[in-house]
Amino acid sequence: MLDALKEAVCEANRQLPASGLVHLTWGNVSGIDRAAGIFGIKPSGVDYEALRPTDIVLVDLDGKVVEGALNPSSDTKTHLALYRAWEGIGGVTHTHSVDATTFAQAGRDIPCFGTTHADHFYGTIPVCRALMPEEVEQDYEANTGKAIVEHFRDHRIDPLAVPGVLQLHHAPFTWGKNALDSLHNSIALEMCARMALGTMQLNSAATPIPPHILDKHYLRKHGPGAYYGQKGH
Amino acid sequence: MLDALKEAVCEANRQLPASGLVHLTWGNVSGIDRAAGIFGIKPSGVDYEALRPTDIVLVDLDGKVVEGALNPSSDTKTHLALYRAWEGIGGVTHTHSVDATTFAQAGRDIPCFGTTHADHFYGTIPVCRALMPEEVEQDYEANTGKAIVEHFRDHRIDPLAVPGVLQLHHAPFTWGKNALDSLHNSIALEMCARMALGTMQLNSAATPIPPHILDKHYLRKHGPGAYYGQKGH
Amino acid sequence: MLDALKEAVCEANRQLPASGLVHLTWGNVSGIDRAAGIFGIKPSGVDYEALRPTDIVLVDLDGKVVEGALNPSSDTKTHLALYRAWEGIGGVTHTHSVDATTFAQAGRDIPCFGTTHADHFYGTIPVCRALMPEEVEQDYEANTGKAIVEHFRDHRIDPLAVPGVLQLHHAPFTWGKNALDSLHNSIALEMCARMALGTMQLNSAATPIPPHILDKHYLRKHGPGAYYGQKGH
Amino acid sequence: MLDALKEAVCEANRQLPASGLVHLTWGNVSGIDRAAGIFGIKPSGVDYEALRPTDIVLVDLDGKVVEGALNPSSDTKTHLALYRAWEGIGGVTHTHSVDATTFAQAGRDIPCFGTTHADHFYGTIPVCRALMPEEVEQDYEANTGKAIVEHFRDHRIDPLAVPGVLQLHHAPFTWGKNALDSLHNSIALEMCARMALGTMQLNSAATPIPPHILDKHYLRKHGPGAYYGQKGH
Repeated sequence: MLDALKEAVCEANRQLPASGLVHLTWGNVSGIDRAAGIFGIKPSGVDYEALRPTDIVLVDLDGKVVEGALNPSSDTKTHLALYRAWEGIGGVTHTHSVDATTFAQAGRDIPCFGTTHADHFYGTIPVCRALMPEEVEQDYEANTGKAIVEHFRDHRIDPLAVPGVLQLHHAPFTWGKNALDSLHNSIALEMCARMALGTMQLNSAATPIPPHILDKHYLRKHGPGAYYGQKGH
Repeated sequence: MLDALKEAVCEANRQLPASGLVHLTWGNVSGIDRAAGIFGIKPSGVDYEALRPTDIVLVDLDGKVVEGALNPSSDTKTHLALYRAWEGIGGVTHTHSVDATTFAQAGRDIPCFGTTHADHFYGTIPVCRALMPEEVEQDYEANTGKAIVEHFRDHRIDPLAVPGVLQLHHAPFTWGKNALDSLHNSIALEMCARMALGTMQLNSAATPIPPHILDKHYLRKHGPGAYYGQKGH
Repeated sequence: MLDALKEAVCEANRQLPASGLVHLTWGNVSGIDRAAGIFGIKPSGVDYEALRPTDIVLVDLDGKVVEGALNPSSDTKTHLALYRAWEGIGGVTHTHSVDATTFAQAGRDIPCFGTTHADHFYGTIPVCRALMPEEVEQDYEANTGKAIVEHFRDHRIDPLAVPGVLQLHHAPFTWGKNALDSLHNSIALEMCARMALGTMQLNSAATPIPPHILDKHYLRKHGPGAYYGQKGH
Repeated sequence: MLDALKEAVCEANRQLPASGLVHLTWGNVSGIDRAAGIFGIKPSGVDYEALRPTDIVLVDLDGKVVEGALNPSSDTKTHLALYRAWEGIGGVTHTHSVDATTFAQAGRDIPCFGTTHADHFYGTIPVCRALMPEEVEQDYEANTGKAIVEHFRDHRIDPLAVPGVLQLHHAPFTWGKNALDSLHNSIALEMCARMALGTMQLNSAATPIPPHILDKHYLRKHGPGAYYGQKGH
């Protein structure tokens, strides 16, 4: 079932090593079919090169595996929490990409220093807190998703406008319209982190992009007035 | 029409991902046929691998699309402004390459610290101001080109001797004799930015190259007395 | 004899250049067959691409070459010392990977700043002392192994929980269940070093991962309660 | 004539882009046949991929081109000066590799911080002064070679033990037993520069490798007591 979804999720996962974001098996991508209420996700600990569409594990929105012979990613419940909370998203990517993870480890938000960032993220990419001992013990992966969702709600950040987060001591999660789009946001996040690190090093007083340029770049790519790209894409 | 131009522009764009300067679709190259008064440019948001010469959009010097089924790059009016102001240039490249963009975000000129820089840029690579809200609103991409041209005029910098600029909060633009040459200047700019970042880190009192060595390196590659390379190339 | 071992060791060595950890011939991997009491190791100074399983040199636990026409790696006695001291390990990798070697040269432990580290190393990756002149003169490579083993014993670090070390002024060694697993730990070590360098640069007061998250990440991948990956792998 | 030399020099030049040391056409390798008193060098400004052994330009020790249809590298006289001064060398490589060039631009020697460095360079890699205006005007490339040779003589550095130098405001030159060996020393130099930059960043008080470890590592690879690698290689 859901062959197109499994192919799209498989293909996005297979692009992870070539993207330079992932070493060993440190990353996973999922994508959801909203009509079916089912998402497909990478099986845990499997090499990307060996991945076939039939290996993709299908999971429903109660977290139950509905198809697949392999264990789903150990981060499945985090993906699930994001899909349940945010109906507008269609894909989730988790990596330990070097520079984004560096910001997560340092506990530093990524300010929007330029248009590369503004093209993908409408403002600061936030750090979300680490879990407390009892949250880890109770259900680590589900509570990770819960903490992310609460951070966006409590700080009134629109997850569709800022499709990524850094979890303190851990690593980034991004999301998007579908599996591939969430991967593209992970690539964008890694590049923004790398540039932000250098920007702060070159100029410790560097200021974020002015609001009118943030608006221009974000809105020429997103929303009803967008004119970037080809119509119908 | 202009098949050779479309092939050259297509080929230069296709080299962007392998150059390491560009991720996703963050970059575009154009080239102009001065006799025809028409330039060819990458279509917006199209993958480089999939690009064919027939996809290249042809635009005249009034900014009118004269051939091509796809939307031209969203940065087309910036390229246009440079072609109109500077008759000596034959190609323009725009990327968000990591280290050059880092300098743009930090608002820092790239000093000419060595011969690698001097081989391509005759002195400091400047930062050009960001646009004001009313300039963004009126015509963002055209005014970006206008601001670049004004910066070179007001600071009396010869754009043929310093074929690149960093726009504050944004990213670099370079130009050259043709599409491929403008791409080569983007590669050189990125390398110069990377080395300048390290140079300032190693030695905060590092001084620019002395004028006699700047002259020697620039002039052995450029101008009537050049002796680098093969005759007729 | 021991064809499967030679193939596994050959394959792990051949992965070194693609891993990005090794330039020229600066690295070697070995693996042991505990039942036979024999380990296979890369021959010294041979290119990885040219390596064939029949080139792998077999050495017993007294350090005697038992099969192979080529000289074994000059680091063979270091591998031997680790195999003799630690019965639980099945493979050893030595590289001069850039960021791990940077920490070794700087004489700085790598703190466990995040889950990427915790997934592979249960706490700080230590720096082990350099050898004294008389130790170098007597038997450099054997005494290097001895110093590593003593460091773990004296500081009560479990080598199976922290499968890597940095030798001062030198470079990293890692180990694992088998040749390939020891290589994977070298890849993980390099990534952790790169992220730690950036983390300390971004936030000089960055703190190590809290113990409950260290435990969670290490134990979901290692030991009887592990649930990462596929059963039987 | 000298077909084996031309093939070896061609092959070493063709390895430059894959080595990661060179962008565009920023580098050249030469090799000498001491019996013939002739060296082969890359033609100026030619792409590495297109290079054929018949393109290699043959030059005698008076600097006269004795075979070849193309212009030799613009740096030919620098190579010539090194071959004339140092009879023990058989190859020369010049690149603008990022981190070595960064040290050259910053005017900073590369201290021997570790065994990776000691395996290839017996101590500090020095910065040699830039040329004076009259030296540039008279014969830039020949005087560059002269300044390098004088630096080693005046500072009593053995060029066979320290096969590399950084020229202030410019970039590195390395040499070796033959063309390929000089390229390997450029690779080693670049890695040592990268690690030294990080070492100084992590620990501003980092000390060079102790003499007994420098001796051990250098001498296990070089000289009559060497035991690294295979006999006869």
